[in-house]
Amino acid sequence: MDVYGDTLEFQTRGNDDVRDLTGDVRRCVEASGVHAGTVTVFCPGSTGGVTTIEYEPGLVEDIQAAVERVFPRGLRYRHNELNHDDNGHSHVRAAVVGPSLTVPIVDGRLTLGTWQQIVFLDFDSSARRRRLVVQVVGR
Amino acid sequence: MDVYGDTLEFQTRGNDDVRDLTGDVRRCVEASGVHAGTVTVFCPGSTGGVTTIEYEPGLVEDIQAAVERVFPRGLRYRHNELNHDDNGHSHVRAAVVGPSLTVPIVDGRLTLGTWQQIVFLDFDSSARRRRLVVQVVGR
Amino acid sequence: MDVYGDTLEFQTRGNDDVRDLTGDVRRCVEASGVHAGTVTVFCPGSTGGVTTIEYEPGLVEDIQAAVERVFPRGLRYRHNELNHDDNGHSHVRAAVVGPSLTVPIVDGRLTLGTWQQIVFLDFDSSARRRRLVVQVVGR
Repeated sequence: MDVYGDTLEFQTRGNDDVRDLTGDVRRCVEASGVHAGTVTVFCPGSTGGVTTIEYEPGLVEDIQAAVERVFPRGLRYRHNELNHDDNGHSHVRAAVVGPSLTVPIVDGRLTLGTWQQIVFLDFDSSARRRRLVVQVVGR
Repeated sequence: MDVYGDTLEFQTRGNDDVRDLTGDVRRCVEASGVHAGTVTVFCPGSTGGVTTIEYEPGLVEDIQAAVERVFPRGLRYRHNELNHDDNGHSHVRAAVVGPSLTVPIVDGRLTLGTWQQIVFLDFDSSARRRRLVVQVVGR
Repeated sequence: MDVYGDTLEFQTRGNDDVRDLTGDVRRCVEASGVHAGTVTVFCPGSTGGVTTIEYEPGLVEDIQAAVERVFPRGLRYRHNELNHDDNGHSHVRAAVVGPSLTVPIVDGRLTLGTWQQIVFLDFDSSARRRRLVVQVVGR
């Protein structure tokens, strides 16, 4: 059994930017040499989410529309009032989607479906550099 | 330390069908012989979610009603327009609930509460055969 | 590789009480002696969620307001009707947020962001004693 850790660094545009991390996570799993185990992708920060989607332009738009409809930017947020900030909606969206995703590794490969990609959702209100943690545990 | 992988295959009716997987996951944990560790249940596919609920008929209805109210089927979805598809709502629901659940194993048993079951939610718009991945990591 | 399990016990007020568990989880990780791996925080029970937020009074209020707006207490819930209960909304909220969080451990430390805390959300309708499971896997 071993643990192999890596980080992914990239620039986002914020404002619900959706980034496909599948190729990067796959490379981490291959570099780890782990044949059977799990990989956890984690966002250190409270305005980003990690999940899976079929990464195609239509769904990227649909997810952006859904989070804006369900957790609107324009509501009154106490976070903004108390901290002179503008990203209360970003925090709420991130808390519900969650910062962590764990995917099984079988025969050295991610067990994703054919039309399923690992994505990072940057809910924050401005562009920024992000660093995600990828942790492979297995043998 | 060891890794024990298994798959669960079953038929669903789609359309927010909720399936109780607790007995199946418990059998995987028992078959693994793992005394202490974690089990990850993962849906390979971007229209299904894995979480826990108290599996009883009232809550199954309540969850179906909640996802239909919050992420309605009848909205305009770009996924449907661009791909001549009808399951944009399924993808959005699945992305928010998430495809993965990790449960600790202590003394060879799942640490679920008494009225807590592991469930698969098939958000897709038609009946289908599903294959989920169960990955046990521990000693 | 080793597995180190612990439990956290605490009293909540229910009704979307948000509890910061970061210090407690950090102590479990330190006690485990694990240098590289993952920690899973799990709620045994179907009316609580585990996620991360920036734990400050404004966001605690914002998250409470968001779950009440999106999954209102006052709707008709079949769970309540069939079981003479009053916490249908609690179950729905918990199923969506999810009962489990996995965070990587690197150099013996949680890889949380500076303004990111691990929180338990008690969605249930009354105060209660909670016991959460913390499972550290690594080397």
